Amino acid sequence: MNLLKVDTIAQSREKLKAAVAEKKQAIEFVKLEDALGRVIASDLVSPEPIPHFRRSTVDGYAVRSSDTHGVTDSIPVFLEMVEKIAIGTPAVRTIGPGQCAYVPTGGMIPEGADAVVMIEYCETFDADSIAVYDSVSAGRNVVGVGEDIREEALFLKKGTKIRPQEIGVLSSAGVHTVPVYKPWKITIISTGDELVPADQKPGPGQIRDINTYVLEAMSEKYGFEVAGKYVLKDRRELLEEAVKKAMQTSDLVAVSGGSSQGEKDHTASVLDQLGDPGVFTHGIALKPGKPTILGYDKPSETILMGLPGHPAAAMMVFELLAVWLYRSETCQQAPKNTVAKMAVNVAGAPGRATCLLVELKDGPDGYIAEPILGKSGLMTTLSRAHGYTMIEVNKEGLKAGEPVQVVLL
Amino acid sequence: MNLLKVDTIAQSREKLKAAVAEKKQAIEFVKLEDALGRVIASDLVSPEPIPHFRRSTVDGYAVRSSDTHGVTDSIPVFLEMVEKIAIGTPAVRTIGPGQCAYVPTGGMIPEGADAVVMIEYCETFDADSIAVYDSVSAGRNVVGVGEDIREEALFLKKGTKIRPQEIGVLSSAGVHTVPVYKPWKITIISTGDELVPADQKPGPGQIRDINTYVLEAMSEKYGFEVAGKYVLKDRRELLEEAVKKAMQTSDLVAVSGGSSQGEKDHTASVLDQLGDPGVFTHGIALKPGKPTILGYDKPSETILMGLPGHPAAAMMVFELLAVWLYRSETCQQAPKNTVAKMAVNVAGAPGRATCLLVELKDGPDGYIAEPILGKSGLMTTLSRAHGYTMIEVNKEGLKAGEPVQVVLL
Repeated sequence: MNLLKVDTIAQSREKLKAAVAEKKQAIEFVKLEDALGRVIASDLVSPEPIPHFRRSTVDGYAVRSSDTHGVTDSIPVFLEMVEKIAIGTPAVRTIGPGQCAYVPTGGMIPEGADAVVMIEYCETFDADSIAVYDSVSAGRNVVGVGEDIREEALFLKKGTKIRPQEIGVLSSAGVHTVPVYKPWKITIISTGDELVPADQKPGPGQIRDINTYVLEAMSEKYGFEVAGKYVLKDRRELLEEAVKKAMQTSDLVAVSGGSSQGEKDHTASVLDQLGDPGVFTHGIALKPGKPTILGYDKPSETILMGLPGHPAAAMMVFELLAVWLYRSETCQQAPKNTVAKMAVNVAGAPGRATCLLVELKDGPDGYIAEPILGKSGLMTTLSRAHGYTMIEVNKEGLKAGEPVQVVLL
Repeated sequence: MNLLKVDTIAQSREKLKAAVAEKKQAIEFVKLEDALGRVIASDLVSPEPIPHFRRSTVDGYAVRSSDTHGVTDSIPVFLEMVEKIAIGTPAVRTIGPGQCAYVPTGGMIPEGADAVVMIEYCETFDADSIAVYDSVSAGRNVVGVGEDIREEALFLKKGTKIRPQEIGVLSSAGVHTVPVYKPWKITIISTGDELVPADQKPGPGQIRDINTYVLEAMSEKYGFEVAGKYVLKDRRELLEEAVKKAMQTSDLVAVSGGSSQGEKDHTASVLDQLGDPGVFTHGIALKPGKPTILGYDKPSETILMGLPGHPAAAMMVFELLAVWLYRSETCQQAPKNTVAKMAVNVAGAPGRATCLLVELKDGPDGYIAEPILGKSGLMTTLSRAHGYTMIEVNKEGLKAGEPVQVVLL
């Protein structure tokens, strides 16, 4: 355990990645109906083309486009209607020169035809023929075989987080059980002699436990499974016992509180003692979030984290390190940010990166980011924030009007 | 039922709002642990100040700030230490002139003291006294009573969607059961003779059902509760039966397919017949999404929607109307957008608004939005999209380089 210097975020991420290099990411299969929000665990290839037949995108008449050349609204062409194709049924007849077939939206294009004239541009002439008042080029109003997904094509990549639209792609490709990453199991441990549960009235000097609730909600938001949660008095043997038990069941143990340099801070020494190799980062160059502890236990493949006691700081460190690591290990892209212009000048912190909470207001040409300046112990600060922007460690600060990337929270 | 003209999105939203004006939004109470993603149903006021005692934000010594005036790192002041305050316990002694008390991070500030000097700037002199090498102003390193939430202050507004940070605020304020809106119950009905379930192999002319899965996922994403789902052959009596049943249990009935002008389109007439007053919008000036049907049944307080058959169009109309209406009725703000510059010129659609799907790429100063041009029947189109931007009905189009608001999907 090296306590001499703090790590930058980049350094601590690198150490985390190196530590978990051999950790196995388990995969499971879930039903399509249960796949929303899960992360696809292998590249998906379609054994068949989608659609597997040529479909019309409109209600109209399937024609040979060459039959409509030169046609205008005053010079129609008359075509023999040889079939009325019903939705969901195969087209039977082949369309020859001078022929056509009625086809509904989504209906199958018959052999011989290569385009569809919208019904609005056609007129029934007699029982067996129609007048067409529009010329169409080949492929018009037709979705070709494999135009949505080609046969053998990779159509969804490993690491894709499943949104409703991916549910649509999966169902169209007939993937009714989906290979997804098993969620990490997390044990949440909050320590502090001052903590009482949310449904109790705190006495003088006591406060209600916040971190357990916040970290449980963060876990739910980001797809971790809570394997256990503890609110402990600040006694070394209680923490030891809980961490030991957690290491048997969890991929990630997050201990909050007890990670500053105060007198009762057992977290670092407990995590270092129980883990093998133990703690590799004690302190990160981040405001807020300095008293962060990172470690690993190889035999049980458990990531060990000590988070700051301040709820806002605990949440940000959890997002920047635990969520980041999970995304990275499951090949996920970070979600898209928004962009805003700083409302005022903000100074950086010497030697540290700053995670600056901002409120977004509507400006004349996009969002204005107003920094939320509040003591880091205040919970309402975080609730007012729409997101955060990072001030890098070597940057003096942000200037009013400067465009910044805002990660939405 | 007026079929003469289509409505703009604004008009159809106005009609929806008017239709549901007397619909009751039911409220329920959920445990704090189950509140993530739910929408707060009444303004929340704190009966007590948070914190309810003055807390230290650092490990250090609680002092009378006036005792430190003029102190520097070469001219210390010596103070008598009268108490060592433990975390979670009341401070007992009052700090008089020349006195101080040790206080840990989060600990209670004793009477008499008005600031805390960080431990780094203090030195133990003997058993009962310390040397202080820094001057502090009143309030320094102290969170005052009610500084996070004042007594009787409104701290979370009705309509707030609960994120992890709101969970934190709720737990700090001791709200362990939370008043939230009951989710709307939705029945999803997909019609079409061509549809087979996702786990079956479609024959010629048939395709797998997509809309039921997509709308179920959308419902889960936006917090609706699926009361029923049906995949029906395109027969009027089947649709009638399903809609009748749905109206008894659901707040919203979404029928997809069968809403264009084709031959088998019963949706509008069934919704109009079963609803009272029935259908008020048939067709909206939106690309894609024109064949949208909107109606209402007052006796059962059921919103009736006919969505386009194309999955991508169905999803967008659901987002722009059903999700919009639910947000509006539950006092929610729309989520924050991102901002991008158009990669190329894109034309609008004459007389219609366009919902343009875009892919976001990293540019030199923010995102570049590349329009995803694909036939609206293609599902992979929607899966490639990070979001969409609207081209208003009277706008000719978007110019390359023009900044646009992108709603993330």
